[in-house]
Amino acid sequence: MSNWGRWGDDDEVGALNLVDPAAVLGGLALATEGRVLSLAQPIGPSAGVPPHRRAPQRFMDRDAGDYAAGARSPDGFCFAEDTVVFGTHSGTHLDALSHAWTGDELYNGHAATNTRSTRGAQRCGADKLVPVLTRGVLVDLVAARGGPLEPSTPVGADDLARAYADGGIEPRTGDAVLLRTGWWERHAGSPEYFDLEPGLDAGAADWLAERDVALVGADNYAVEVAPSAPGSTFPVHLTLMHRHGVPLLENLDLRALGEALTESGRTTFLLVVAPLPLAGSTGGPVNPVAVL
Amino acid sequence: MSNWGRWGDDDEVGALNLVDPAAVLGGLALATEGRVLSLAQPIGPSAGVPPHRRAPQRFMDRDAGDYAAGARSPDGFCFAEDTVVFGTHSGTHLDALSHAWTGDELYNGHAATNTRSTRGAQRCGADKLVPVLTRGVLVDLVAARGGPLEPSTPVGADDLARAYADGGIEPRTGDAVLLRTGWWERHAGSPEYFDLEPGLDAGAADWLAERDVALVGADNYAVEVAPSAPGSTFPVHLTLMHRHGVPLLENLDLRALGEALTESGRTTFLLVVAPLPLAGSTGGPVNPVAVL
Amino acid sequence: MSNWGRWGDDDEVGALNLVDPAAVLGGLALATEGRVLSLAQPIGPSAGVPPHRRAPQRFMDRDAGDYAAGARSPDGFCFAEDTVVFGTHSGTHLDALSHAWTGDELYNGHAATNTRSTRGAQRCGADKLVPVLTRGVLVDLVAARGGPLEPSTPVGADDLARAYADGGIEPRTGDAVLLRTGWWERHAGSPEYFDLEPGLDAGAADWLAERDVALVGADNYAVEVAPSAPGSTFPVHLTLMHRHGVPLLENLDLRALGEALTESGRTTFLLVVAPLPLAGSTGGPVNPVAVL
Amino acid sequence: MSNWGRWGDDDEVGALNLVDPAAVLGGLALATEGRVLSLAQPIGPSAGVPPHRRAPQRFMDRDAGDYAAGARSPDGFCFAEDTVVFGTHSGTHLDALSHAWTGDELYNGHAATNTRSTRGAQRCGADKLVPVLTRGVLVDLVAARGGPLEPSTPVGADDLARAYADGGIEPRTGDAVLLRTGWWERHAGSPEYFDLEPGLDAGAADWLAERDVALVGADNYAVEVAPSAPGSTFPVHLTLMHRHGVPLLENLDLRALGEALTESGRTTFLLVVAPLPLAGSTGGPVNPVAVL
Repeated sequence: MSNWGRWGDDDEVGALNLVDPAAVLGGLALATEGRVLSLAQPIGPSAGVPPHRRAPQRFMDRDAGDYAAGARSPDGFCFAEDTVVFGTHSGTHLDALSHAWTGDELYNGHAATNTRSTRGAQRCGADKLVPVLTRGVLVDLVAARGGPLEPSTPVGADDLARAYADGGIEPRTGDAVLLRTGWWERHAGSPEYFDLEPGLDAGAADWLAERDVALVGADNYAVEVAPSAPGSTFPVHLTLMHRHGVPLLENLDLRALGEALTESGRTTFLLVVAPLPLAGSTGGPVNPVAVL
Repeated sequence: MSNWGRWGDDDEVGALNLVDPAAVLGGLALATEGRVLSLAQPIGPSAGVPPHRRAPQRFMDRDAGDYAAGARSPDGFCFAEDTVVFGTHSGTHLDALSHAWTGDELYNGHAATNTRSTRGAQRCGADKLVPVLTRGVLVDLVAARGGPLEPSTPVGADDLARAYADGGIEPRTGDAVLLRTGWWERHAGSPEYFDLEPGLDAGAADWLAERDVALVGADNYAVEVAPSAPGSTFPVHLTLMHRHGVPLLENLDLRALGEALTESGRTTFLLVVAPLPLAGSTGGPVNPVAVL
Repeated sequence: MSNWGRWGDDDEVGALNLVDPAAVLGGLALATEGRVLSLAQPIGPSAGVPPHRRAPQRFMDRDAGDYAAGARSPDGFCFAEDTVVFGTHSGTHLDALSHAWTGDELYNGHAATNTRSTRGAQRCGADKLVPVLTRGVLVDLVAARGGPLEPSTPVGADDLARAYADGGIEPRTGDAVLLRTGWWERHAGSPEYFDLEPGLDAGAADWLAERDVALVGADNYAVEVAPSAPGSTFPVHLTLMHRHGVPLLENLDLRALGEALTESGRTTFLLVVAPLPLAGSTGGPVNPVAVL
Repeated sequence: MSNWGRWGDDDEVGALNLVDPAAVLGGLALATEGRVLSLAQPIGPSAGVPPHRRAPQRFMDRDAGDYAAGARSPDGFCFAEDTVVFGTHSGTHLDALSHAWTGDELYNGHAATNTRSTRGAQRCGADKLVPVLTRGVLVDLVAARGGPLEPSTPVGADDLARAYADGGIEPRTGDAVLLRTGWWERHAGSPEYFDLEPGLDAGAADWLAERDVALVGADNYAVEVAPSAPGSTFPVHLTLMHRHGVPLLENLDLRALGEALTESGRTTFLLVVAPLPLAGSTGGPVNPVAVL
């Protein structure tokens, strides 16, 4: 089973195609209180990164010190500006469909070799991710279990099914499903955050794909449990992203959302995800927003 | 007249405070068709930048070529990732309130000297910008005048008043007002884009501030007309951002939105702006979304 | 004819091996006046780069403005520091032997696929270039012809032979041969610099390789004439670097050296080239020094 | 006592002025064996940096993987290139005279405020450092004491005097004095390297300045002992660099040189230091070379 060919041979949008106007309106209908929550982790020199990635940097191109030191301010006008350097898979981001694959082809059969040094991802880059407004479903395991999951705890299809049943949720085409494991709340910014994360297992990925979700996210750095089950490497990435074109939304901060939904006795909300359209990048940095 | 002190002496959020739950719900009510439009310009090595800024860069940290050249893919798993380098005032972004000031103080009296090399903007940085959903009002001068404005055309208070009247729009507290000049459509990516842009004049800024707008944006790189009127330098920045805490949304692409609204005979819509919370940065890159 | 295997199958040093202690002492013997000249072009935001490369950047991490704006200076101690971003083939540099190849192998049969995104050039990187002191020979065509060469002028074996004869120079194993074309003097920092450069042709490369030179440099950005002769692409790179392990020293400023040698009636001098040992890089930035 | 004004009010070269042709020739005379040693630490992602600085980065702009993945190679020509990002005070470098100061003025009374964000160090930048060939004197405390110095061991004037006496060295104007503490040999690349380093104390700096040295270097990251004596902060930087215009050569690897000199029963050698002329930078990365 896969979504290859489902939206044409040229398609680079994948499961985000499932968010049609009806899904948008269905999501919007959940925003009844006008309460807006950011789901982003902070991005900056102090945010953690896994060992194989580099810490974000920010350089001031002009700052108040320059004026204090005598820079000219025509008619009294002063400004400050800066340059940032960061990996697109640092911080909160939506994986582009060029991020993970197996064999020689990306999602939908696009040749993987379209992703090279000079021009980046010519197919399925972050610039092909479309903004999404849809129904968000929070699977809040912190609330369900009374605290953050233990390291390397797998979350399976039955866990998802139970959460849906407990919350009275009927799956809908185009849903965005977010998993709160408590991993970020427990290890924000620490090296531990990048090791032994609890998360989805391969069966959970199948369960979600079968329900035609548009995107899947979590409050950890790879959505799926680490380490992967023996004999597999990042199987959730391959099932969701590669076979079904479902982008993953990583490094979320879901604490405030979880607490707000618990308070309101809700499990669904409007989710807005509009990643930066970085030409040729493999991930789209984003400040995802939940609206209740 | 100013908004200093209006939301307390410590406030760093400014006019975005005006977007209360009622304004959010008012905005959401305009999303009746479920049609989603991105207002972002592309970001990448080929996007133009003004001469004093640097072109965005993207470096591949891992790509398909590495596997073609023999990199190990455990269990067949392959991935690609990249690092980006860009000025936060390149591309589509929301100015943080630390971006522009006069005298020794930022908006609300925060000492400008909080913005220095090492730690960036400690006050009013991009990490203090909150996500916004509110009513968007498009002032579409391309539609009104049958084409893009000429270079350095000022847009004044009377132009705004006329657009509001023609569109039957009553100003509302917390509105986001976007100005379509046609400048990006005409000069996308070219050096000309950064010279002689048409845009708001000082009187227009007063007019907007008096109407308690939450943010103001345009399809040019500084919102306001360039060059500034003699004896003033970026007066719209100072009126809106510095005195009233109104952040500016720059480098929009408003063509698709303008055409869609014209087709539908509308002038208002739901606008979602959720900039990246870059710690200490002076601008928040964003993919703004209009929903009709 | 090639140098593959000449210094063992593992060799990554190439023709720099030719600079033995005798060659070093032979070079040192030419430094009779104690006069030191830098042959480097300036490196910085204003230095030109070819269109496919990026301009060098420099960001201040701390500067005097920070102190003017109130940064703490314990016991009155102040300091400034900065970060640079630049392509290793911008500015004056010695090409590492991983820079250019044909087929699947670098110089000496090292697999080209050792050069990948994550770890850079694992073989023949800039960190394998050794510091060189040797006899420098200036082939000064500006002096010989009364001015800079015209665009795309090829410099052939006969031109080199004539220059050696006129200067009374006997080739020596381990020589560093520098070619002054006048290209930098004529086009310093301009876009023209990267087009249509005069330089060595393929025959000249053979001539030099046969004479067992250690390195070859020029005051242009690729040492060899551009465009390459029909049916060939950068043949001088392939002959010298790939087949003979002779690194190329590019983007020199040879004006002062040329004038000093002319004044003194000399053509040889001590050359010192000690590139930065950048791990995995393909070029070693350097400030080459001539001593008369 | 200071060198301000000694070489004119505009001077930005400082004590490197002391290296006149006689000093150059004196240095060259010591290169009797033709043996060349690099004194540089490796520069790259794996080299350590102090906590307030950033690790060097290298990004491949083109590599062998791109060809393996199908990039075009006209006439079979392939090339690789890369971009580096690093702090100029990471790795082996010569401090520019804009690096450290006290009060409002750099060495020689240049206004410190010439060093600002946009243009970097307009006075006393790395581009003002001239290449140096001179006599090097190694003060080898590892050899003298049978091993690396303990953490925070101060090296005083009497230690220097004793080393000179033991080595039979007469100070000469324009000498480059290098201190081998064993700190790098002991802690290469580790976090410890940046803490508690043994090095020169304030009295040693006076002793050296009085002897008209041209530059002073060490195999640690700040030349001087850390922490500084109570009531002072980096006093050696202020005495040597600020008052006397003596640049410091930091992060050397002096093991091979120390062992070679011990073997040969020597203490002096030819030192060549030709830092990159980075416009506006505060430090000049360099591969220093010793020749015996």
